[in-house]
Amino acid sequence: MTCSVAAVMGAIGDRWAMLIMRDLILGLRRYDDLRRSTNVTNATLSDRLKALEENGLVERRKYRSRPDRFEYVPTEKGWDVGLLMQAMVQIGDKWNQSSSSGPPLRFVDEGTGHGVKLAPVDMETGALVEAKHVRALAGSGADDLMQWRLSRSSCRT
Amino acid sequence: MTCSVAAVMGAIGDRWAMLIMRDLILGLRRYDDLRRSTNVTNATLSDRLKALEENGLVERRKYRSRPDRFEYVPTEKGWDVGLLMQAMVQIGDKWNQSSSSGPPLRFVDEGTGHGVKLAPVDMETGALVEAKHVRALAGSGADDLMQWRLSRSSCRT
Repeated sequence: MTCSVAAVMGAIGDRWAMLIMRDLILGLRRYDDLRRSTNVTNATLSDRLKALEENGLVERRKYRSRPDRFEYVPTEKGWDVGLLMQAMVQIGDKWNQSSSSGPPLRFVDEGTGHGVKLAPVDMETGALVEAKHVRALAGSGADDLMQWRLSRSSCRT
Repeated sequence: MTCSVAAVMGAIGDRWAMLIMRDLILGLRRYDDLRRSTNVTNATLSDRLKALEENGLVERRKYRSRPDRFEYVPTEKGWDVGLLMQAMVQIGDKWNQSSSSGPPLRFVDEGTGHGVKLAPVDMETGALVEAKHVRALAGSGADDLMQWRLSRSSCRT
């Protein structure tokens, strides 16, 4: 699959699976906790956990025997979804700026306690880049369809 | 709605809508181009465009009269989804590192031509923060459920 956006959306699946990933990244581990947090049906939760496991984002681990009890933990690949979660929180907070109650989550550097946000950064100098100056170009793995998309984007009306 | 992740997932909708947003952010404007790029059915494309318009992410603009012709443009809110797209591309590329063909898209600073990536940045100093040092805490708008989620996360087994 050529497009990374499609690949990531495919691996996560849908919004329920994304909410499950959010909870696992926030540190929830138990099935019952995930159920309470997401408020989805048992059928949906079991199905999405299974799919996330098959897609390599979640590991199911036995933490007790007789009776067997399992917990769910993000894999290394699953932890990468944290970047996506942080991007969503940042966008959601921006959209919701007029809300009097403020943001539900904030991200901090655990060392300094300073607030942290995602920003585009120059890979050579480490300097911040303004979002409006960021441009998407074809990479070396761009297929014909991606080349075509980018060629059409210069035909704005 | 308290959780920004849920709010953003709700506004976008599903993976088809996300692919449409990707295309609009890359610069596609015409219905037929969106159809060719995403390869979804007319029913799905019309439905998702309508939902994205209702959610304030996309504006439908008449660009010609008799016969009327329309194009689709991201709103200011819609452009914010670019952050999410960039996060997805970054994660997808990381997952796909073993691919011989390389990444399909790359992001550059249009001024310097340097590669750009999303990274966690200290909001006070502008310094880069390592992802593993970023911690999520309750914000001022955290409701009881969010407080509970974060309290459970300290109970890791």
